[in-house]
Amino acid sequence: MTAKLLFAEVRLKSEYYDVDAMKVVWHGNYVKYMEKARCALLDTIGFNYQEMEDSGYIWPIVSMKLKYIKPIFYNQEFIIRATLLEYKHRIRIGYVIIDPGSKAMFNKAETVQMAVDLSTGNSLLVSPPCLVNAVKTKIKQEEKS
Amino acid sequence: MTAKLLFAEVRLKSEYYDVDAMKVVWHGNYVKYMEKARCALLDTIGFNYQEMEDSGYIWPIVSMKLKYIKPIFYNQEFIIRATLLEYKHRIRIGYVIIDPGSKAMFNKAETVQMAVDLSTGNSLLVSPPCLVNAVKTKIKQEEKS
Amino acid sequence: MTAKLLFAEVRLKSEYYDVDAMKVVWHGNYVKYMEKARCALLDTIGFNYQEMEDSGYIWPIVSMKLKYIKPIFYNQEFIIRATLLEYKHRIRIGYVIIDPGSKAMFNKAETVQMAVDLSTGNSLLVSPPCLVNAVKTKIKQEEKS
Amino acid sequence: MTAKLLFAEVRLKSEYYDVDAMKVVWHGNYVKYMEKARCALLDTIGFNYQEMEDSGYIWPIVSMKLKYIKPIFYNQEFIIRATLLEYKHRIRIGYVIIDPGSKAMFNKAETVQMAVDLSTGNSLLVSPPCLVNAVKTKIKQEEKS
Repeated sequence: MTAKLLFAEVRLKSEYYDVDAMKVVWHGNYVKYMEKARCALLDTIGFNYQEMEDSGYIWPIVSMKLKYIKPIFYNQEFIIRATLLEYKHRIRIGYVIIDPGSKAMFNKAETVQMAVDLSTGNSLLVSPPCLVNAVKTKIKQEEKS
Repeated sequence: MTAKLLFAEVRLKSEYYDVDAMKVVWHGNYVKYMEKARCALLDTIGFNYQEMEDSGYIWPIVSMKLKYIKPIFYNQEFIIRATLLEYKHRIRIGYVIIDPGSKAMFNKAETVQMAVDLSTGNSLLVSPPCLVNAVKTKIKQEEKS
Repeated sequence: MTAKLLFAEVRLKSEYYDVDAMKVVWHGNYVKYMEKARCALLDTIGFNYQEMEDSGYIWPIVSMKLKYIKPIFYNQEFIIRATLLEYKHRIRIGYVIIDPGSKAMFNKAETVQMAVDLSTGNSLLVSPPCLVNAVKTKIKQEEKS
Repeated sequence: MTAKLLFAEVRLKSEYYDVDAMKVVWHGNYVKYMEKARCALLDTIGFNYQEMEDSGYIWPIVSMKLKYIKPIFYNQEFIIRATLLEYKHRIRIGYVIIDPGSKAMFNKAETVQMAVDLSTGNSLLVSPPCLVNAVKTKIKQEEKS
């Protein structure tokens, strides 16, 4: 039995201020696209940045990796999908950016976030119950639907 | 008799991520250059962002205008000078961006900031004494030197 | 008789990477929002950046002014409307950013663009026919509908 | 015998527009710091972006990874060192960001770039001689000095 993985997708278009002198999206700007998709995913879990802060914990990014496969040109549409790969010890999210038409892949990426207790400033090696419960509730909802 | 105007200069180079598909600095990125020069100016007055916040007031930008005269290309050096034009009621700063060699002007700009009292959230029509005194002290120092 | 003014609207949400340490959108990031609305407006006229370049002319920004009325907080939705105010000699566009609910105004802005002939590099004091015709055609369509 | 590794360092300060609502540098902005250090390194080799393009090849980023160890706060100074780890088949550069005082490490990162022949659009599995020779010449200079 495989558990369903939670994911969210956003459809975006590259902006003029995102492209560089080679007329393709500058590699650093993909991090913004990833953040939009991550926020959409965390929203569906009911655990967006505001809800995180209210919970007494924050989840800073501790590592990130990106693989650039095909360039995205100016004014090109793309879909970025963020998938929750891990949540019990840390939040690990995988990303793929694809062409909505050809389904060709532009980019694959991953981020890891670790919980920090705002009251102590300490990093946690196990996710606090507020996150774990939110994810489990969402997974159950998805499995029913 | 004319009062000396306080100013500060920073020397910068356009970065690859600053230029657009036309290989010139994207017009929105000048705002970052202006902020660097403004911070340098406020530093010399002893009134940088941290010192502002500690004073119980903040000075958000309430208006900004820019005039683009000549484009800045990738990897091009330029000097941006920020000059304090007004401080008694609001902070008005003028900017010029020039070519260090030819002295040709790339850009002229201006920002206006108004004090907000952090304890009430109200905007002030007159600058609080902490700012006025800091500027006056700095002007006196400059006039002596 | 008043001519109908062409406009376009985009609905956006402030992103985490757009806000600063005061938890409001950093003033320089409004320029990106303006560009999104301007591109939407130019798209409706059939004169987007690609169509500009294909026409043999480009329209760099020659001046810009912004007035900040109310801050936009993280994750806040807003509408930005770009209105074509002038096109016969230069492209002048006005912008308003408003709260979709209360209709309160966050920001008012304006940009001016002048045509540059790509073959000579010269700025033009009168808009080339390709732009004027595109705008007139669009205005006629709008007046009929 | 170990070969000397080529490196370059730049000393930077985090800007107000680089920090987020948590008052630390937003994780995506480190990519800009890495680019500044990479450009400094490529400059010392005599192979900056302009020289690349003139050579008939470009080297887009094909992968990137970052590890965030300690946050960088607003107005904090840091040194970023870029070290050339590989160049014969691809350009692999390692980065460390450290505190100039305590030498504590803020961040470790790596980028990989592959040559693309501008005349064919093809990626190359072996670096073109123009790059290899430039690096070898620079290494020899360094070994003499």
